Amino acid sequence: MPKRLVVIGGVAGGTSAAAKAKRTNREWEIRIFEKGPYVSYGGCGLPYLVGGEIAKKEDLIVRWPHQFEEQGIGVSVNSEVKEIDTSKGEVEVFHAEEGVTRRYGYDALVVATGARPFVPPIPGVDLEGVYVLRTPLDGEAIRMALESGKVKKAVVVGGGFIGVEMCEALLNQGVGVTMVELMEQILPPMDPDIANLVQERLEKAGVEVMTGCGVEAFEGRESLERVVAGGSAIDAQLAVLAIGVRPNVELAKAAGVSTGPTGAIAANERMETNVPGIFTAGDCAEALHLVTGEPVYIPLGTTANKMGRVAGTNAVGGDATFKGVLGTSIIKALDLGVAMTGLSEKDAQKRGIPYQVARIKGRDRAHYYPGSHPITVKLLYHSESRRLLGGQIVSHWTAAKRIDAIATAVYAEMTVDDFARQDFAYSPPFSPVWDPMLTAANRAVK
Amino acid sequence: MPKRLVVIGGVAGGTSAAAKAKRTNREWEIRIFEKGPYVSYGGCGLPYLVGGEIAKKEDLIVRWPHQFEEQGIGVSVNSEVKEIDTSKGEVEVFHAEEGVTRRYGYDALVVATGARPFVPPIPGVDLEGVYVLRTPLDGEAIRMALESGKVKKAVVVGGGFIGVEMCEALLNQGVGVTMVELMEQILPPMDPDIANLVQERLEKAGVEVMTGCGVEAFEGRESLERVVAGGSAIDAQLAVLAIGVRPNVELAKAAGVSTGPTGAIAANERMETNVPGIFTAGDCAEALHLVTGEPVYIPLGTTANKMGRVAGTNAVGGDATFKGVLGTSIIKALDLGVAMTGLSEKDAQKRGIPYQVARIKGRDRAHYYPGSHPITVKLLYHSESRRLLGGQIVSHWTAAKRIDAIATAVYAEMTVDDFARQDFAYSPPFSPVWDPMLTAANRAVK
Repeated sequence: MPKRLVVIGGVAGGTSAAAKAKRTNREWEIRIFEKGPYVSYGGCGLPYLVGGEIAKKEDLIVRWPHQFEEQGIGVSVNSEVKEIDTSKGEVEVFHAEEGVTRRYGYDALVVATGARPFVPPIPGVDLEGVYVLRTPLDGEAIRMALESGKVKKAVVVGGGFIGVEMCEALLNQGVGVTMVELMEQILPPMDPDIANLVQERLEKAGVEVMTGCGVEAFEGRESLERVVAGGSAIDAQLAVLAIGVRPNVELAKAAGVSTGPTGAIAANERMETNVPGIFTAGDCAEALHLVTGEPVYIPLGTTANKMGRVAGTNAVGGDATFKGVLGTSIIKALDLGVAMTGLSEKDAQKRGIPYQVARIKGRDRAHYYPGSHPITVKLLYHSESRRLLGGQIVSHWTAAKRIDAIATAVYAEMTVDDFARQDFAYSPPFSPVWDPMLTAANRAVK
Repeated sequence: MPKRLVVIGGVAGGTSAAAKAKRTNREWEIRIFEKGPYVSYGGCGLPYLVGGEIAKKEDLIVRWPHQFEEQGIGVSVNSEVKEIDTSKGEVEVFHAEEGVTRRYGYDALVVATGARPFVPPIPGVDLEGVYVLRTPLDGEAIRMALESGKVKKAVVVGGGFIGVEMCEALLNQGVGVTMVELMEQILPPMDPDIANLVQERLEKAGVEVMTGCGVEAFEGRESLERVVAGGSAIDAQLAVLAIGVRPNVELAKAAGVSTGPTGAIAANERMETNVPGIFTAGDCAEALHLVTGEPVYIPLGTTANKMGRVAGTNAVGGDATFKGVLGTSIIKALDLGVAMTGLSEKDAQKRGIPYQVARIKGRDRAHYYPGSHPITVKLLYHSESRRLLGGQIVSHWTAAKRIDAIATAVYAEMTVDDFARQDFAYSPPFSPVWDPMLTAANRAVK
């Protein structure tokens, strides 16, 4: 009888694990159980489904179930794993369409249960018109609400990555937007000086940004009419909660799988949990931070995919390792791109790491080449070792992807002095002769 | 009496050296002698002056002489250094405007004499209508010829970086273009599979590309009428020679300064030549290749600036080092961007370095995000150590700058396996969830 791999969860981490497992060892029988109706979708594209850049939710699907089946991977959607029975090596699955529960044996398991949006216990949070944005169905629901023509004003609750992307999406749909963020700044993972540049841009585009201010109530008769925040009532027919996610760990915990200090599932670098034969990947799992060596919970699609490959490889007898993350991330905010990698000032302060900052404002192309835009580059480095700790960029959105070079240098544990020696590509349409990243590094070298 | 630094040559390397020397040690008296009428111009912008993206040659000037003078740096233009007298510590300078020769003492010298276009001894090469493109005056002359309306067809001799940029410039000006390249491929520093993608794009835009074929003669009565190449005559009223440059080393050699195996001036990592007190920087100097450790001659504006800072620092008693180059370069070819760093296949073969290739064709954005384009990424890595040796990218021009991340990894001597672990920035407008660079690396990891 072939060995059996069961993958719980079929979005980024789960499908990566299943596909990689099949390529690693074709002898194994592999089955994905997904609670929702879709597998393998680009969750990060949801704001663009709302904004209209993407026509319909099906466009977000990377691979359909039949494509997995053709690869020899079984897929069951609308199928929720209710229990992991480690003593028998079985999972109990509720198939919602059939309304039946079945048990399936496994020899190895990948827990890729993902995360769920945090929904705070605010009065009126269940009102029609109050949404989260996590699945294609969520995205479609918001899009349909917007297309109904009844939404003139919207409130985005939370000024993080998804919150900012939702501002752009709602503006694209011709809706007035108020953003409400509990912290004193938007984009909490970034430093205030960087986040403020984005806030100014949003405000210039007409977004009302309220920081240091929480939502007290959602109000309305049949559906949302007002959001009460910071003591004042904001007219709004639609609100999106984008205040972070919580890892789905309950199923695994009940089976004896340990979570780490972040509350997400802990695993070694083979992505194996404390329970032998149970692996994990994706937004339910924590990861080591490559600068601090500490576990962090930074759920991102790239990380989920990387973890999935490692979990899938090892689950079927292969050998791969996942070293950790830098939290590299990037978002588009209208015409701006905002990117970060490694530690922010706040991160360094929190950990008592002595650091210095090199920050410059330059241009993304040669001064004489048409269409150049401002770019701000900020580098953090260790005061004593001079090791590069992180970087942040705000620029025209076409220039922000150069954060990858900083991420590579941070990964390589390069000093800021060595980073200043990098041989970066130059010609006038692409950069000034000193790339702004080098100009920032040279500021530190002085 | 203050110590005196003389800088010979006032474009990229020379002005970088002078400016950095002044910042390093304000006690020194610093003077730049420049043979031509302009200092501190963006030579890499010349194709865009020809193409019309840049209005006039003055727009290319980074800093004018009076701006150097305000910093306390003397600048003499139209002033050619004729001799370096190391025994007396003097240079002899011919000031063309005054028609006089004077001698100036120095305590340290930076030789930044640059390079000159190679002009092959082809019949008719001196005809009116045959140009090189090196200085703002060259660029202006070609631009004026184009604006005269008499040029319907042009021949670009040489399919290197400047040749390709000239094709775009001439097309922008509504001129028919034939490119003639002696090698079997255009873009000789790159591998044929990459260069061919660019050639196809140029051909699609109407450029006739002739490879493996040299120019036999330039013909015409008063000015250019025909270029004879590969045995056939091409009607053309304008031709641009873009077949490489030769370092200007004669002045330095006459003073006992040694050149290296490449024929350019040799220097240690402090950019000091074999003659104590004589430093060098820019297109007249060779550099160590960071992968092979061998001297190479890859004259580029970025390198000139970096060398200049190091030469300037050390010349006035500071301490800085220049480690070498990866030959990272990028050009725009119509809507394409083409970039490379490190070794090409040809480089590796020539040196007997055992290597493997990972090459993929992907998209530069998420498949569902509007406006995505194809991108080809090619990575070379050492067959045994698996060290990343180099990379090449062809993509929409807005995506090619990601070569910097590969350059950083090559600099850091990263293996291709470690490169596959990089935490690159992702969101749908910027990249697929697996950045194409990672997809290429994963191909190597298997």
